[in-house]
Amino acid sequence: MKIALAQVNYLIGDFEGNTRKILEHIQKAKSQQADLVVFAELCICGYPPRDFLEFDDFIRRCYDQIQIIAAQCTDIAAIVGAPSINPNPKGKPLYNSAFFLANGKIEAEVHKTLLPTYDIFDEYRYFEPNRSFSIIPFKGKNIALTICEDLWNISDNPLYILSPMDELALLNPDVMINIAASPFHSEQAQERLDIMVRNTAKYQIPLVYVNHVGAQTELLFDGGSMVVDKKGVVQCMTKFFEEDFCVTDIDQLAADVNAPQNTTPDKIALIHDALVMGIRDYFKKLNFGKAILGLSGGIDSAVTLALAAEALGAENVRAVLLPSRYSSEHSIDDAVGLAKNLNCPYDLIPIDGAFSAFEKSLEPVFNGIPFGLAEENIQARTRAVLLMGMANKLGYILLNTSNKSEAAVGYGTLYGDMCGGISVLGDVYKTDVFKLAHYINRNEEIIPINSITKPPSAELRPDQKDSDSLPEYDLLDQILYLYIEKRQGPTEIIEAGFDAAIVNRVLKMVNSNEWKRQQTPPILRVSYKAFGSGRRMPIVARYLL
Amino acid sequence: MKIALAQVNYLIGDFEGNTRKILEHIQKAKSQQADLVVFAELCICGYPPRDFLEFDDFIRRCYDQIQIIAAQCTDIAAIVGAPSINPNPKGKPLYNSAFFLANGKIEAEVHKTLLPTYDIFDEYRYFEPNRSFSIIPFKGKNIALTICEDLWNISDNPLYILSPMDELALLNPDVMINIAASPFHSEQAQERLDIMVRNTAKYQIPLVYVNHVGAQTELLFDGGSMVVDKKGVVQCMTKFFEEDFCVTDIDQLAADVNAPQNTTPDKIALIHDALVMGIRDYFKKLNFGKAILGLSGGIDSAVTLALAAEALGAENVRAVLLPSRYSSEHSIDDAVGLAKNLNCPYDLIPIDGAFSAFEKSLEPVFNGIPFGLAEENIQARTRAVLLMGMANKLGYILLNTSNKSEAAVGYGTLYGDMCGGISVLGDVYKTDVFKLAHYINRNEEIIPINSITKPPSAELRPDQKDSDSLPEYDLLDQILYLYIEKRQGPTEIIEAGFDAAIVNRVLKMVNSNEWKRQQTPPILRVSYKAFGSGRRMPIVARYLL
Repeated sequence: MKIALAQVNYLIGDFEGNTRKILEHIQKAKSQQADLVVFAELCICGYPPRDFLEFDDFIRRCYDQIQIIAAQCTDIAAIVGAPSINPNPKGKPLYNSAFFLANGKIEAEVHKTLLPTYDIFDEYRYFEPNRSFSIIPFKGKNIALTICEDLWNISDNPLYILSPMDELALLNPDVMINIAASPFHSEQAQERLDIMVRNTAKYQIPLVYVNHVGAQTELLFDGGSMVVDKKGVVQCMTKFFEEDFCVTDIDQLAADVNAPQNTTPDKIALIHDALVMGIRDYFKKLNFGKAILGLSGGIDSAVTLALAAEALGAENVRAVLLPSRYSSEHSIDDAVGLAKNLNCPYDLIPIDGAFSAFEKSLEPVFNGIPFGLAEENIQARTRAVLLMGMANKLGYILLNTSNKSEAAVGYGTLYGDMCGGISVLGDVYKTDVFKLAHYINRNEEIIPINSITKPPSAELRPDQKDSDSLPEYDLLDQILYLYIEKRQGPTEIIEAGFDAAIVNRVLKMVNSNEWKRQQTPPILRVSYKAFGSGRRMPIVARYLL
Repeated sequence: MKIALAQVNYLIGDFEGNTRKILEHIQKAKSQQADLVVFAELCICGYPPRDFLEFDDFIRRCYDQIQIIAAQCTDIAAIVGAPSINPNPKGKPLYNSAFFLANGKIEAEVHKTLLPTYDIFDEYRYFEPNRSFSIIPFKGKNIALTICEDLWNISDNPLYILSPMDELALLNPDVMINIAASPFHSEQAQERLDIMVRNTAKYQIPLVYVNHVGAQTELLFDGGSMVVDKKGVVQCMTKFFEEDFCVTDIDQLAADVNAPQNTTPDKIALIHDALVMGIRDYFKKLNFGKAILGLSGGIDSAVTLALAAEALGAENVRAVLLPSRYSSEHSIDDAVGLAKNLNCPYDLIPIDGAFSAFEKSLEPVFNGIPFGLAEENIQARTRAVLLMGMANKLGYILLNTSNKSEAAVGYGTLYGDMCGGISVLGDVYKTDVFKLAHYINRNEEIIPINSITKPPSAELRPDQKDSDSLPEYDLLDQILYLYIEKRQGPTEIIEAGFDAAIVNRVLKMVNSNEWKRQQTPPILRVSYKAFGSGRRMPIVARYLL
C-alpha cells in the first residue's frame, strides 16, 4: 500500500485556503498512485484554533470543508483532522478527530484519547477524551489511527493512565498512522523521533507520522514527518521548516535498510531556522510585507535584524537608529555597519528632542528629584513612540528585540523596548543570542564583531552596563534555566552550587516582573518552556518575593 | 454539630500570611464552640496558583503549612484545601485536595473529581481527577466532602459524565460540605445559589458551602458562603466582597425556616462593589498605596477615578489632565470638576510640547503625508509616557481606563491609552459604564453630568466623535454581547435582526484586534466572558476577517 505524507503549512480559520492546499495534495498523491494521503491533526481549521472551537459557526465550517474534501476522495483515501461534535449530551461538546475519507464520503472517524493539557496545550479545555477503540480496515490492511499525544504515553513516567496503542494493538493492526500537531523546541525533533522509534519497537509494526509545518503566531511547527519501519529504522523523513510531500510503499519498507536516519542539526542552527520561519509566517499570514525595528548597535537588535532580513528580504526590514544623549559613537557605527552589510534601509532619528520635551513637561511634578530609572524609561518609551509612529504611518510591524534573560528578570522598559508585534528573541537566553550571532557570521562578518564583543549596555545613562544591575549573563542564564526550564526551587538551585544571595535575588526578579511579561508581544517559542501561553503565572502573588 | 464557615481573603503563594489567617479563624471557631471549621479550596496557597503548582518547592511549602495547621486542630476539626501529591506514578502528579484535620493530624484527605478546564479555569493542566469516593465520619455524622466543581454537574447539559455526589449519596451522608473557589461575575451569585439548592433538593441533606473572597489580580471572588438546609432554604449566608465568619448548628437547621434567603443585588451595584474590591486588593496585595490615571473629562476615566477613590481613598489617587491641541475646554472643566468633587489631587500637563517634538523628529520620514491615525496614536502614547514617567518617578501604579466595547473593537492606542497595571473597566461595556456613572451619582452629582451626557470622543483630532468610527454604542454593545458572551456566529447574529454589514464589520474588528488585547493589562473580570485568561484566541488567523 502506498501512503503519501502531506506536510502542509495551514492558517488558523482559513477554511478555504486550507482546503485548497489539501485538495492540491490529494491530486498530487493521486498522480503518484498513492492509495492513501495523510494530513496533520486539525488541519481543516489549523492548529491551535483555541477558543474559536467554542463557536458553533466555526465547527459547522469545519464540517462543510470535510464534505468538500470527501467528495474528491474517490479513487484515493485521505485522512484529515478536524473537531467533531460529541453526540453524547454528557461531557465536553467536541472531540479532536481524524476523518478517514474514501469512496467520496466519511468512511470512519476516530477521536483523540490523550488530550495534552500542559505548557502551551489546552486540549481538555475543548475536547472529550475518546474511550473506545477500533481499527480501520483498508485495502487488506488494518490501520491503527491515532492523534499526536496518543502515541506519547510511552515514557517511564506516564502522564496518563491509559495508552491508546495498547488497546489498538489487541486488534491486530498492520500499520500505525499518527496525525500530529507537535510544535518545535530545540530538543523536540530528537525527542519525537525517539518516541516514534519506541512505538515501533513496542508494537512491531511500521508507523506513518504526519506533522504540521509553519508558524502559528508564537508556535513554530517544524515538520519532520516520517515513516518508521517495524525495526525502528526511519524510512523517510520530510524536510524541517518547510512544506514537503513524500510517498512510501509500506509493503516494501523492511527491505529498505539504507534509507537515511534522521540527523538532528545543531541546536543553534535549528533555533536560527525556526526563528526565520517564525518571522516569515507571522508577516505572510498577516498579509504584511514590511518590518521595522530599533537598531541600537547592541547584539540583540543586530541578531533580530539579520534574522528578519533573511525571513523577509533585507529591503523589507527598516532599521531605525535612535541615539540618546548617552549613546556611544561606536554604537552608531556598529548599527550603520550592520545595516550596510545586510543592505537594509536605515534612518537615524535622535531622541533627545522629544526626551527634552518630556523632561520639560514633567519638571513641575518631578520637583528636582535627580535623574534615575524613570528618565531611563522615558528614553526607551520615546524610542517606542517614534518606532510605532513610523510603523503606523508608513505600514510596518515593529519587531521586538528583547531576549529571554531580560524578559525573565524584567530588565527592559514596558511600553518602551518591550513593544512590538512579535518578539523574535524572547525565548533565547542572552548567552545563546551570542551563539546565534556567531552562527549568522559563520561565512562572513555580517554582524560587526564589535557588537558581539563589547559589554552589553542599555546606554540610558552615562557609562551604563547591564552588569551594573544584573549578574553576568553566563551565571544569570544558568540560574534562569534551572528555574524556568527545570522548574527547580531555590533550595535545589542553591544545592547545585550557586550563591544563595544571587539565586534568591534572581528568582525574586523573575517573579516580581510577571506583570511586565503579561503585556509583552507573543514570543517565538524555541525552548520547551517559553514565556507566553506555556507559562502561566499569577501577577499578584508573594511566592519567592 | 456546630460548623463554622471561614470566608477569608488569601494571597497566592503567601504561605505564612494565609496560615496566620487560618489559625486565627480556627481560634475564633474554638472560642465559639464549633466542632468543625471549614476553609475554602486551595486556601493554603491561594487560588489560582497557576504554574507555581509545577514547582516541587511550592508543593512542599503547602505540606509544611498543613502540618502547622493540623497541630492546632486538637479540640476542633478543620477542613483546608491544598494541592497533594498523586502517589500513583501514572497520571498527573497532583490532586486538588481537601484535608480533614483533627486530633492534631491529617485524619482524611479527599480529592477533586471534576476539574474545571474552561474559561479562566485550567485545573486539568495540573491535577489528576479523583476516581474513588468515601465518606468522612465525624462525631456521629457522615460528611460528604467535595470540592467546588464537584457539585456543579447538576445542570441539564452536564459537562462531565460523572457526578461525584451521586457516588457519595450511596454512602448515606448526613451533610454535604463543599469548599470552593468560585469567582464572581454579575450573574454568578444567583447561579451559585441555584446550584446549591438543586443539590439539597436532589440529595435531601443540608449543605455547607465555603468560598473565597477577595481579588487575585483579575479574578474577583465575591464570597457568599452559605448553609442550605435539606429543604433548599438558605440558613445563613456570609457577606459579599468581604471576609466573614459564621457558625451554624446543622442539627437545628430544619427548624429555622425564617432565616434570610439570598437577595441578589442589582447587577450594576454588584459590578460596582466587585470593581472597588478588585482595585483595593490589587494595590493592597502588591503593597502599593497610590494610583495615577489620565483624566480626560470623558466618562470612562471619570468612573475609573470614582471607583479608585472609593477603593484607595481619594487622597491616594492622582488624576492627570493631559489636554492636546484638540481637547475641548469643557473636557478640562469636567475633569477638574470631578477631581474637586472627589477631593483627589490633580495636575494639568499639556501634551503639545512633546507631541510637537515628535512631529518635528518624524518630519523627515513622514514625508508630508497628511495628519492621520498615526498622529492620533502619537498623542495617546505621549500621554502614556507622561503618566508612566510620573508613576515610575513618584511611586504610582497607572490605572487603565479603557472599557470593554473599546477593547473589543480595538478602538484605543496600544502603548497609549491601553497602558496600565490593571484595567478597571475592561470588562464593562460602554452602555454599562454609563449605568455605573449614574450609580456612582445615585446620592449626589459626583461625576459631572456633562461627562455622562456628551457624545463620547477621543479628542485626538478636530471635532472627533467615537460614532465617526464605530456604530452607536447601544447597537455595538448588543452585537458584541452576542459574539463575545453568547459565542454566536455571524449567521445567528444577523438572524437575530441586526444589519449584516454592521455585524460583519464588528466581528472583523473584534478578531483583527486580538494582537492589541494580548498586550493589555489584566482586566478585572465582572462578566462570564472577559477578555484575558478566560478568552484565548489566536492572533494570526483568518476567521471572520
